[in-house]
Amino acid sequence: MGRSIGKRAAGEVRILPVAVGGEIRAGESLCATLLAAARSLGLRFQEGDILVVKHKVVSKAEGAVVALDEIRPSAASLAWARRYGLDARVSELAGRESRRIVRRKRGVLITETRHGFICANSGVDVSNVDGGQHAVLLPVDPDGSAAKLRRELKKQVGIEIAVIVSDSFGRPWREGLTEVAIGVAGMRPLVDYRGRRDPHGYSLHATVDAVADELACAAGLVCGKLAGTPACIIRGYVYNRGRGGARALIRPAKNDLFR
Amino acid sequence: MGRSIGKRAAGEVRILPVAVGGEIRAGESLCATLLAAARSLGLRFQEGDILVVKHKVVSKAEGAVVALDEIRPSAASLAWARRYGLDARVSELAGRESRRIVRRKRGVLITETRHGFICANSGVDVSNVDGGQHAVLLPVDPDGSAAKLRRELKKQVGIEIAVIVSDSFGRPWREGLTEVAIGVAGMRPLVDYRGRRDPHGYSLHATVDAVADELACAAGLVCGKLAGTPACIIRGYVYNRGRGGARALIRPAKNDLFR
Repeated sequence: MGRSIGKRAAGEVRILPVAVGGEIRAGESLCATLLAAARSLGLRFQEGDILVVKHKVVSKAEGAVVALDEIRPSAASLAWARRYGLDARVSELAGRESRRIVRRKRGVLITETRHGFICANSGVDVSNVDGGQHAVLLPVDPDGSAAKLRRELKKQVGIEIAVIVSDSFGRPWREGLTEVAIGVAGMRPLVDYRGRRDPHGYSLHATVDAVADELACAAGLVCGKLAGTPACIIRGYVYNRGRGGARALIRPAKNDLFR
Repeated sequence: MGRSIGKRAAGEVRILPVAVGGEIRAGESLCATLLAAARSLGLRFQEGDILVVKHKVVSKAEGAVVALDEIRPSAASLAWARRYGLDARVSELAGRESRRIVRRKRGVLITETRHGFICANSGVDVSNVDGGQHAVLLPVDPDGSAAKLRRELKKQVGIEIAVIVSDSFGRPWREGLTEVAIGVAGMRPLVDYRGRRDPHGYSLHATVDAVADELACAAGLVCGKLAGTPACIIRGYVYNRGRGGARALIRPAKNDLFR
């Protein structure tokens, strides 16, 4: 065809699963566990790598786990749960972990979490825990969790690794969950094309890409719910270093057409 | 650490960019162009590959391009555009391509397209076209476009390839655009974990993953806006074959808490 290849063409991106056997326990060093798992798979961290970790193992390591037996649901939680065949203790926890109820309809509870994330049940989750006796909460400070993991990795392997902590969120209008970045360290979560020009010289005036969420989704392809793979390394994606946590992905209320 | 590796652990997933030099023209065989581009990069399609293509080249090949000079904006489009410093012809087109206005506020126009997608400006786009004289519309039938590309690939390379046509959409509550699948062929766009059990035997009662959107996001890591890379091959992701277009990703209005 005689077409030349674009000058700024990207290279291959690889998503390398880091499978971990067994459970992550409160107080355990997630960094040590993931490094050992990576090593056992023959994986070595390289300059430019991004580590994506499902929030659930972060929460477990940080002890953000609640025994459901200790939750006394309110009358409102009991009524709501009874009506829709839900676990009232989980509904109760979801309410406690929220700072605002966004929608409560037909058994679905959408809340704004204390961090400002908008998701179902404040991210409270009883799957992949221990058969339903405990619930895993979102990490208290997911950006802080990502930064801590990044610091520890730096210490262990001597390389700056970007870290993303991810969770699966639903969204309006579209079916199915997708992964989103709830914690980010060592990279800018948004790439701003505003002011840049496309190959035709046309200004890309409204284009900001949520690359941290796209990276979380890419990770979701290997970090499956049933796979025992809570983390992966994304290699080959050239990200913008620098500060910027996942909080930058939360649209301020004043700019949000849907609040 | 002595941890064993999960039995269902996923393997590596690779995202292989397919850069194409020059413009895609109306009537051109996108299949032939992409195959030639892949070949020139030393890429050969393999069993199990997924081809992700940005909708823009699909639309261009299908001639879903409009000369802005031929658009006569209505008084309402003119007033709206003047107020927010926009191109009235694009606003006019966005209205024409919609079947419903979802939000119209502060210069942002969110519509439901004729396909049922909810996005800004009905997906009408003037970036990456030709400096602003033409606008690219969404393909008339993106699932059909994906199916056609899949059939042609089958004919040319003799392999069943899943095809995803993607676009960048904004979303409520979170900043930045992410890629979504607007056309899908040869794979199920949703993976339904309902009824399956996690490693603890706990039923994953509400988990349906929008894998086609996650694949589109993964592709977005290499199919950059400025990169001249309108397509990529995703290799190593084990998808569920079978029917199911991107229409399955549109939440029916009756189930949507946000309509």
